[in-house]
Amino acid sequence: MKSEPFRIALAGLGTVGAGVVKIVQKNGELLARRAGRPIEIVSVSARDKNKDRGVDLSSYSWIDNAVQMADSNGVDAVVEMIGGSDGPALALTQTALGRGLHVVTANKAMLAHHGYELAKMAESNNAALMFEAAVAGGIPIIKSMREGYAANEIQAVYGILNGTCNYILTEMRETGRDFADVLKDAQAKGYAEADPSFDVDGVDAGHKLCLLSALAFGTRPDFASLTMTGIRQINKTDIAFAGELGYRIKLLGMARRTNGRVIQLLEPCLVPVQSPLGTVEGVYNAVMVEGDFVKTGLSEGRGAGEGPTASAIIADIIDLARGQRVPTFGVPATDLIKPDWADIKDTISSYYMRLTVLDQPGVIADVSAILRDHRISIEGFIQRGRDPGQPVPVVITTHETRHGDVLAACDAIAKLSCSVEKPCLLRIEDIG
Amino acid sequence: MKSEPFRIALAGLGTVGAGVVKIVQKNGELLARRAGRPIEIVSVSARDKNKDRGVDLSSYSWIDNAVQMADSNGVDAVVEMIGGSDGPALALTQTALGRGLHVVTANKAMLAHHGYELAKMAESNNAALMFEAAVAGGIPIIKSMREGYAANEIQAVYGILNGTCNYILTEMRETGRDFADVLKDAQAKGYAEADPSFDVDGVDAGHKLCLLSALAFGTRPDFASLTMTGIRQINKTDIAFAGELGYRIKLLGMARRTNGRVIQLLEPCLVPVQSPLGTVEGVYNAVMVEGDFVKTGLSEGRGAGEGPTASAIIADIIDLARGQRVPTFGVPATDLIKPDWADIKDTISSYYMRLTVLDQPGVIADVSAILRDHRISIEGFIQRGRDPGQPVPVVITTHETRHGDVLAACDAIAKLSCSVEKPCLLRIEDIG
Repeated sequence: MKSEPFRIALAGLGTVGAGVVKIVQKNGELLARRAGRPIEIVSVSARDKNKDRGVDLSSYSWIDNAVQMADSNGVDAVVEMIGGSDGPALALTQTALGRGLHVVTANKAMLAHHGYELAKMAESNNAALMFEAAVAGGIPIIKSMREGYAANEIQAVYGILNGTCNYILTEMRETGRDFADVLKDAQAKGYAEADPSFDVDGVDAGHKLCLLSALAFGTRPDFASLTMTGIRQINKTDIAFAGELGYRIKLLGMARRTNGRVIQLLEPCLVPVQSPLGTVEGVYNAVMVEGDFVKTGLSEGRGAGEGPTASAIIADIIDLARGQRVPTFGVPATDLIKPDWADIKDTISSYYMRLTVLDQPGVIADVSAILRDHRISIEGFIQRGRDPGQPVPVVITTHETRHGDVLAACDAIAKLSCSVEKPCLLRIEDIG
Repeated sequence: MKSEPFRIALAGLGTVGAGVVKIVQKNGELLARRAGRPIEIVSVSARDKNKDRGVDLSSYSWIDNAVQMADSNGVDAVVEMIGGSDGPALALTQTALGRGLHVVTANKAMLAHHGYELAKMAESNNAALMFEAAVAGGIPIIKSMREGYAANEIQAVYGILNGTCNYILTEMRETGRDFADVLKDAQAKGYAEADPSFDVDGVDAGHKLCLLSALAFGTRPDFASLTMTGIRQINKTDIAFAGELGYRIKLLGMARRTNGRVIQLLEPCLVPVQSPLGTVEGVYNAVMVEGDFVKTGLSEGRGAGEGPTASAIIADIIDLARGQRVPTFGVPATDLIKPDWADIKDTISSYYMRLTVLDQPGVIADVSAILRDHRISIEGFIQRGRDPGQPVPVVITTHETRHGDVLAACDAIAKLSCSVEKPCLLRIEDIG
């Protein structure tokens, strides 16, 4: 065993940072055996020095300005747990990489926006940039995609990537309550932030999908090319209808290669109840990968939380301490390509369409005519209850059809005099 | 990119060997980008040179005696796909490691029996011994346990590790047919061997469990300490009763640490229908890991077959080509311990017990008295149909109880005059 310890500096001491300290303190001896050398925390940094974080920090140097951690002599890797796509997190990462220090980060926002530049910077300075904790902390999916499935040309990756959204959708289904109500409850329990938009509008899951997509296809992370829809428009009627049709509604990240083009979509979809992704409930995350030789692989685990995320950070640190170096996104950064992004209008899928229309004669005839005119074939049709002259939900499921056509049909339906609100349109993804 | 190729010799050209050739030929350019250098097959070896394997082998040297592959100059790694715990596979592995060549193997039998000695040999010769393909080919579970979960003290690992058994159990449930019938069918379809005992008696899954257990607990692989029961005694009545109780019967490998001792069990168990392992059907494998920080992680994929197993072998090769070196079982071989193995009689579980008894007055009173005398608390009780004087099945589920006690009770019940055959006893594992 090399006796020289591997020295780390921890920037950010929130839940995850405290978790990293706990693992090093509790499992230190085990980590040393696995890494071949001790893992030693040399310095820590956070906004408030005096806050009680439930861990003993007295033996580590306190550094007020995190960026200065990259100056410390004798630090092998900086662990960036500050968060935010820019600001001090980015400054610290750039400074550390620029000086040839390894960086381990949990920061999906920073990598989704600056991943390509940072990977190039790491490479040109002979440093590693590791981010297992940035996506689905409890699932070693970054390592699996970068190394475990490395023999494969990846065709697609699908994921339930945001525990808050999955918790809300699961609660809505189990309790029959509506989105706003369950969200309020989730906020009270600490499962959702006071400002929930980062989660419920899909931004967080979108960042993660960009990183999976880069690993899958060797592309530069490109958040701007992602088409993103959150879960605010899902109501309890949709959840109930989906169940009746044998599906669950999940906020799904999907990155696929078709005809040489790549598409990245993040939106609520219907997935079969009995499928591997359909059974992933509550705060769990899951990722399914399709490769040309491995076929499909699924991994499931806790997406966030102190223990799982800190566990992912320590896994990266052990890799570095062992001397393992793998390019950030699996191939040399200079090889990462800007792909041709497919137009979402050209994607093909089956659809779930919920209309809210006045219960009056002729509605179905009008709707059917619009669908026919847009070359959309109806697979099924549900209308429950009768309430003459009042708004009622009508659900239509379609056979496979072009997204652009179904969008145009929805616009036309919205303009019908019987339409009370814009149709709710969800993809049906019969994966797994 | 290093221009020096990473040179491999392939010993064994069955399904998996042919799969490795196909991946190198189809995805060679991609592998080179990921490995940082080309992967080059220099030589191949198998029993029959003239057999058509559906791949072009003309550009590789043919070597009749696989052991001589370790002599070739310029080979970086030998890929052992011969199979068998001893014989040529072992001879080749020992020779190669002894000469400081890396070995990549799919051979669970060899590692379950000789893993400790081979890991020591690899280490003392500064060579790597890699075996991702030996367990659940389509799931990068060896890498996940050795690296992805490395921050954790592992408490338990559970797995559905044999696709043939899982296929048979799934078919029995879906078609209502009995074991022998489904087995015959599986043999005809090529899902089961002519001599099925390696699969259905649990040997294959047992080998794999030993390797997972070694990785989980840092122990020397020890097949002899495994308690193993296959699936021959499961009949369609059990499958139906399990379903009625909300469970599926799965051949489960379980390695757990309790009170400083380790237990390795491989046996058919009842797992909840809705649990992550309960939904794994057909030829799929799945592994669930419990760690102190990551909590639970589940991975699912194809357990065998050309593509998934060859994909696992190539992943190991890419690791080696990149220069990654991790100890075979995650810690230095010399640190691997011989644990105190727990006595299966001291394990605690709920149980499913199917009796076959004559339908006559007093039977339940006799059985209940035996259970009471063995301190076993009954949780539920099912008897369907009436057939006075004839053998009928009676199912009892118990609360948590000591295995030794429930075994003794089964022996006593078997001796009752009303007993027609020995009770079928299965653990109920409410995991996940």
